[in-house]
Amino acid sequence: MSAESVNPAAVAAIRALVEDWAEAIRAKDVERVMAHHAPDSVSFDLAPPLISTGATPSGVEAWFATWRGRLGYEIRELSVTAGGDAAFCRSLNRLSGTTIEGEKSEIWFRRTVCFRRMAGAWKIVHEHESVPFYMDGSYRAAVDLTP
Amino acid sequence: MSAESVNPAAVAAIRALVEDWAEAIRAKDVERVMAHHAPDSVSFDLAPPLISTGATPSGVEAWFATWRGRLGYEIRELSVTAGGDAAFCRSLNRLSGTTIEGEKSEIWFRRTVCFRRMAGAWKIVHEHESVPFYMDGSYRAAVDLTP
Repeated sequence: MSAESVNPAAVAAIRALVEDWAEAIRAKDVERVMAHHAPDSVSFDLAPPLISTGATPSGVEAWFATWRGRLGYEIRELSVTAGGDAAFCRSLNRLSGTTIEGEKSEIWFRRTVCFRRMAGAWKIVHEHESVPFYMDGSYRAAVDLTP
Repeated sequence: MSAESVNPAAVAAIRALVEDWAEAIRAKDVERVMAHHAPDSVSFDLAPPLISTGATPSGVEAWFATWRGRLGYEIRELSVTAGGDAAFCRSLNRLSGTTIEGEKSEIWFRRTVCFRRMAGAWKIVHEHESVPFYMDGSYRAAVDLTP
């Protein structure tokens, strides 16, 4: 049993899902993004609130509309663990693009995604995205870090 | 199959582990904290860096030393999913205490923990703790949110 995998076939399926999801983000394809989420998936997002439930096509679409053209989405240090009907992965991700105001934006953040196998298909039931923050009294989000 | 569990016995074991870990934090018991972690567990912490590997007793001890007396640690909205040899949970947690400088501190944050069953025992292989940040141009960490 490797450090990464419990079930190699399931790990391969999760890796393919994560890459397809990332390509859907790059192409701003709402339907393709949503296809990977369970209806009641729970998110801990980069922006407030602390917790939100049930990603909606209109929410994803509204977010895509704040960007011009395609998005950049890079995934590094992806590690996947899958066993039975539960799986999880973690990685360092870089989102980049140009906002509708014409501002270039780029951020490295951490992403943990949790999956369940439902009716034979792996679905995202929980995701957690964040940057750390500086504990120097400034409480500034560390949006300037790179792997 | 409920929305939460895949394997009820494993879910109960994870819930007991999470509560024991929290009590170890409250009591600042380094050995009891470490007992739940796999040696190569990977953390996405509240403070930089982006990623760190392998929690050490001296690291935990140094962090405990920044606090006076017992710590407060509350866990809310805990949801656990376990299947085969992989499991994960998410919750909203409140850490509170008095620093060695005598300052009262309290923060609500999100916590996602991922587990593997190793030689029959569930161990933490990954944890992700964070607060979101305000996307109003201030990049302030949202340390003032409550559930």
